[in-house]
Amino acid sequence: MRTRSITSKIPQLRLASGYNIPQVGFGLWKIPPEQTANAVYHAIKAGYRHIDGAYGYKNSVEAGEGIRRAIREGLVSRADLFITSKLWNNYHARRHAIEMAHVETDAWGLDYLDLFLIHFPIAQQYIPLSESRFPSWYLDASRTRVTPRAPVPISETWQVLESLVAPGPEQPSPTTTSSGFLRSLGVSNFNAQLLYDLTSHARVPPSVLQVEHHPYLAQPSLLRAARDLGIQVTAYSTFGPQSFLELDNPRARDVVPLLQAEPVVRAAARLRRTPAQVLLRWCTQRGLVVIPKSVHPDRMAENLDCCSFDLTVEEMDAISSLDRGLRFNDPGMTHGSPLHIF
Amino acid sequence: MRTRSITSKIPQLRLASGYNIPQVGFGLWKIPPEQTANAVYHAIKAGYRHIDGAYGYKNSVEAGEGIRRAIREGLVSRADLFITSKLWNNYHARRHAIEMAHVETDAWGLDYLDLFLIHFPIAQQYIPLSESRFPSWYLDASRTRVTPRAPVPISETWQVLESLVAPGPEQPSPTTTSSGFLRSLGVSNFNAQLLYDLTSHARVPPSVLQVEHHPYLAQPSLLRAARDLGIQVTAYSTFGPQSFLELDNPRARDVVPLLQAEPVVRAAARLRRTPAQVLLRWCTQRGLVVIPKSVHPDRMAENLDCCSFDLTVEEMDAISSLDRGLRFNDPGMTHGSPLHIF
Repeated sequence: MRTRSITSKIPQLRLASGYNIPQVGFGLWKIPPEQTANAVYHAIKAGYRHIDGAYGYKNSVEAGEGIRRAIREGLVSRADLFITSKLWNNYHARRHAIEMAHVETDAWGLDYLDLFLIHFPIAQQYIPLSESRFPSWYLDASRTRVTPRAPVPISETWQVLESLVAPGPEQPSPTTTSSGFLRSLGVSNFNAQLLYDLTSHARVPPSVLQVEHHPYLAQPSLLRAARDLGIQVTAYSTFGPQSFLELDNPRARDVVPLLQAEPVVRAAARLRRTPAQVLLRWCTQRGLVVIPKSVHPDRMAENLDCCSFDLTVEEMDAISSLDRGLRFNDPGMTHGSPLHIF
Repeated sequence: MRTRSITSKIPQLRLASGYNIPQVGFGLWKIPPEQTANAVYHAIKAGYRHIDGAYGYKNSVEAGEGIRRAIREGLVSRADLFITSKLWNNYHARRHAIEMAHVETDAWGLDYLDLFLIHFPIAQQYIPLSESRFPSWYLDASRTRVTPRAPVPISETWQVLESLVAPGPEQPSPTTTSSGFLRSLGVSNFNAQLLYDLTSHARVPPSVLQVEHHPYLAQPSLLRAARDLGIQVTAYSTFGPQSFLELDNPRARDVVPLLQAEPVVRAAARLRRTPAQVLLRWCTQRGLVVIPKSVHPDRMAENLDCCSFDLTVEEMDAISSLDRGLRFNDPGMTHGSPLHIF
């Protein structure tokens, strides 16, 4: 069966928790809720077993529908899937973090999540769900009033999540609870200094760091820090400016699209692959997890197939040399926010 | 008196602690111990009232000698001076941080320090003073074995330092002790994420962030974060690559020296000032504290006089546009260390 053979070709990376994560996942950022159930169902049909969502993506309920349809039709079982979600900024404080971990797990309609990440290293004031179901960085729809910061240290949030972790291969019961429903923990958008600090107090070690990563933002130093700390890295926005054009990001308009960058196009021509596959392979060959998004079944299959060929050392280096420290997902610079986390 | 008039021209910046810091200080990094007493004495004679030292600079005892000579000769009183020192990486754990704050204050021969900073956002294993008086990043003289990290969160170190703070203008007694001997606290080499986290748990707010800052590393986002958090920023290595040539730093060899950079030279010619003064003024006009080092009395006086003229907006912007995110003091990249903090 074609799907099974593609799926079996996707490498699994070992996490600090003792669980494995499939190196290629399906990303849900910016998929409209009304398209999400279908997209997730087709992604599973195409062979994806790793789905990357977040409370802030506003489509977890719909993702869960797609998963249940796939399970109902016998395409997969729950145990075949690796589901990631993330805690949004307004819920870092102890009782809100607990509540949201439950709310989000329930939204997916699953008994447990495989991986739960702190979405951003910044706590914003709590907003009750009755006031806003999905708070953004802002208090208002016109995005002029940023939600103030809340004085919640990362250590508090991490301790809460630790208390929700289920016993697992590398996580014996003293640090976890039998009623836990999170398998692995991680963080997103953290830099190295905060990773060093987190690992100095964490009882459940972080399994994953998810960050923006593409040839224009190759972050060699951060990748080394994560490797030294035993943390797997998931790359988001692998195609660089591409994801940010629709958000009208000025930095994205002003650079050559990575899908047209010379070393990418050249490698694609040699390999008879698409530039998108080359960009994904550049990541997976560096040992990273990728989570491309597409709602088109052909593109889904193409993206998934990004571990079955190899770039040469010269091609890897030529693509790496595009690095210019160019970050697109920067709430301080590109969303007009006073939160300067990078 | 000439010295008094220069000194009175140096602006004072208000700290979160309620104390003031002179915007131009005299930096002790890399001054050999045998030259330090003399250098500090002459700096005070030239008009400096702010001295920036650190345990790791290995010259605090000698700096104290220079200060006492100046006081003995009636040039200044202790109250006229603002003395900064810093806690080295091996002493972040509770009892070592307390011990080192005492050791360092005693080394200066002073009853109190005006400002005490955590030198780097990384804790390394404790090394007893009997084994090594001044541990570096390394365990060995040939700099091949990096001292391993120690699992001490920044929050632990900060809480220790808080317990040593004396009551002051903005620090009433509940958070401080009457036996405290530190007036203001701060951090060095921290990035924005760790500042946000620190301020979310600090009871004594950080007064100062000291970081590498020059036109090749202008760090606009970090400066905004510090400003939003009410933290004054001290710029070190204001002349950029200059300080690092003697350390044989490859990044420093490969760029145009800032003292020869076109917009710097052009502004210097218009103002009839030296390029060094222009570089310092670019910082002070951005609202930063500067701490240039020199052992030459003429150069000391020249560096001190960097607030008495103004760059135009165009000159400021032209110098700022040299920014290329180029960091020289990076223990992970340039000292061959596995500590990737940037």
